[in-house]
Amino acid sequence: MHRINIHCVGMRDGLQMEKTVVPTDVKIQWVEGLYKANPDIVQIGSFVHKERMPQMADTDELFIELNKRGTKPEGVTLSGLVLNEKGLERAMNCGVGMVCIGASASETHSMKNTGKTVEDAVSRLIKMAQEVEKTNIKLQVSVQSAFGCGFEGDIDENKIYGIVDRYLNAGIKLISLADTAGYANPSQVERIYNKVFSMAPDDVEFACHFHNTFGMGLANCYAAYKAGVQYFEAAFGGLGGCPFTKKAAGNVPTEDLVEMFQNMGRIKHINIDALNDVAKSISEYFGRELPGYVYKTGSIKH
Amino acid sequence: MHRINIHCVGMRDGLQMEKTVVPTDVKIQWVEGLYKANPDIVQIGSFVHKERMPQMADTDELFIELNKRGTKPEGVTLSGLVLNEKGLERAMNCGVGMVCIGASASETHSMKNTGKTVEDAVSRLIKMAQEVEKTNIKLQVSVQSAFGCGFEGDIDENKIYGIVDRYLNAGIKLISLADTAGYANPSQVERIYNKVFSMAPDDVEFACHFHNTFGMGLANCYAAYKAGVQYFEAAFGGLGGCPFTKKAAGNVPTEDLVEMFQNMGRIKHINIDALNDVAKSISEYFGRELPGYVYKTGSIKH
Repeated sequence: MHRINIHCVGMRDGLQMEKTVVPTDVKIQWVEGLYKANPDIVQIGSFVHKERMPQMADTDELFIELNKRGTKPEGVTLSGLVLNEKGLERAMNCGVGMVCIGASASETHSMKNTGKTVEDAVSRLIKMAQEVEKTNIKLQVSVQSAFGCGFEGDIDENKIYGIVDRYLNAGIKLISLADTAGYANPSQVERIYNKVFSMAPDDVEFACHFHNTFGMGLANCYAAYKAGVQYFEAAFGGLGGCPFTKKAAGNVPTEDLVEMFQNMGRIKHINIDALNDVAKSISEYFGRELPGYVYKTGSIKH
Repeated sequence: MHRINIHCVGMRDGLQMEKTVVPTDVKIQWVEGLYKANPDIVQIGSFVHKERMPQMADTDELFIELNKRGTKPEGVTLSGLVLNEKGLERAMNCGVGMVCIGASASETHSMKNTGKTVEDAVSRLIKMAQEVEKTNIKLQVSVQSAFGCGFEGDIDENKIYGIVDRYLNAGIKLISLADTAGYANPSQVERIYNKVFSMAPDDVEFACHFHNTFGMGLANCYAAYKAGVQYFEAAFGGLGGCPFTKKAAGNVPTEDLVEMFQNMGRIKHINIDALNDVAKSISEYFGRELPGYVYKTGSIKH
């Protein structure tokens, strides 16, 4: 049975849409709260232009400060999202444990995000990936809008497989498929992951990133699990949203995801009470209820 | 590919916990709203003692009035929940299309609900089932607390199989497994349904009823679907709760469930916009947001 790895992306994909900029010392408390849960990876920010996204402006500082404090458990990796070469340079200079980069499978989404066609964006990405692979930093490369696009609707699955093929040819070992718009359904998830697993050598691992726009987040995670996916991205309390959908569109709630896998007997290394505590703090900080269930109900008592 | 049947239980399992008693004419509007969606079965009430549950006191009247109006599309069946012999008599006298009865797999839950052991409750149920089978009325017999119990925690799976075996020996053709407490996880769901399908002759069909207490409702529906389950119970907007859990514990939202199966290409006969309209009316009536996603976001545009 393959290991299930939990990648907590709430500090980045959860917070990035929040207008209230969270002070660095509060963010550090939340990250150290997550440490107590012992997740595999915590994404703490995005190396985006500081003026473009004030919530992420302290990403470099956060890495430096968290590394200095030395409170991180050995099994936890700190990741950061990188959007371009300048961001990659910043990431490499502040001690990230893992770099996450990605290109969209949707031409419209790619143009809006990067000003490049999908083909050009992928070429640029592969060059960045090769820079990371010269270091000891872990690397995840993703296909965004892999299950549908808020602009274009359905995405030709061959487009996804074409991008994955280029990643595989470049020697990339961890590939994430991201459902940026929340359009994925579980049959599609199983079909697409079965295909990419069949394309990849045995030492390549796959990750998934689902949004809960239409409530299918956990069902999609289960489908991805059935297909063999090893890394699951989720955010505290289901916080977050996509800037291009105006609808309810949070991430998969980390606590609900971990509760599911724990009840399935497939995760034992994570402390869900610690995850719940962080989600409660975040709910209190923003003064509203978050969409997740388990941080409110607690775990199932067996 | 087996047909996916949707059983809308919101009028019963959704409403029964609401303190505001909904007038009969409003209930009729909601049921006729559901008719526009063309679901397979609509459960409109429970033949419980009228003073014990005032919200369900007009169940007989609702059946009589709805039958008289003749607005029901041919493909839609009206079901009612029956708890005892007196209720069965009432159901047979007011023109129900389908009778739903059940016994709990949990001794504590069974004692609290019926004052009987599981074995005695099942014997009584089988006698009631045999009465129904003398008529043209459809019948569904369920195992409640099949995936765990709010009082007892885990339920021995052999206990479930023992009850299902007695139902099968009694010639029952539609068996529902109900997750009364919301404790089910998708691996367990696949395992248990795979087992009961293996026990049953080919003409026996299975139903599922999940609650969303821990957010796993849709994931469990997907798992049940994968095992071959043909009937899915759900409530508008995810309304509802179990009287014995004090926590957030709505049903699976009908709109989210149908959206999932439509996107999987597995349901074509249901009008989801009509389902969304009913959920919106119910949200407005009770003056609060319901937990479902799709009635708020609308369907995915392909």
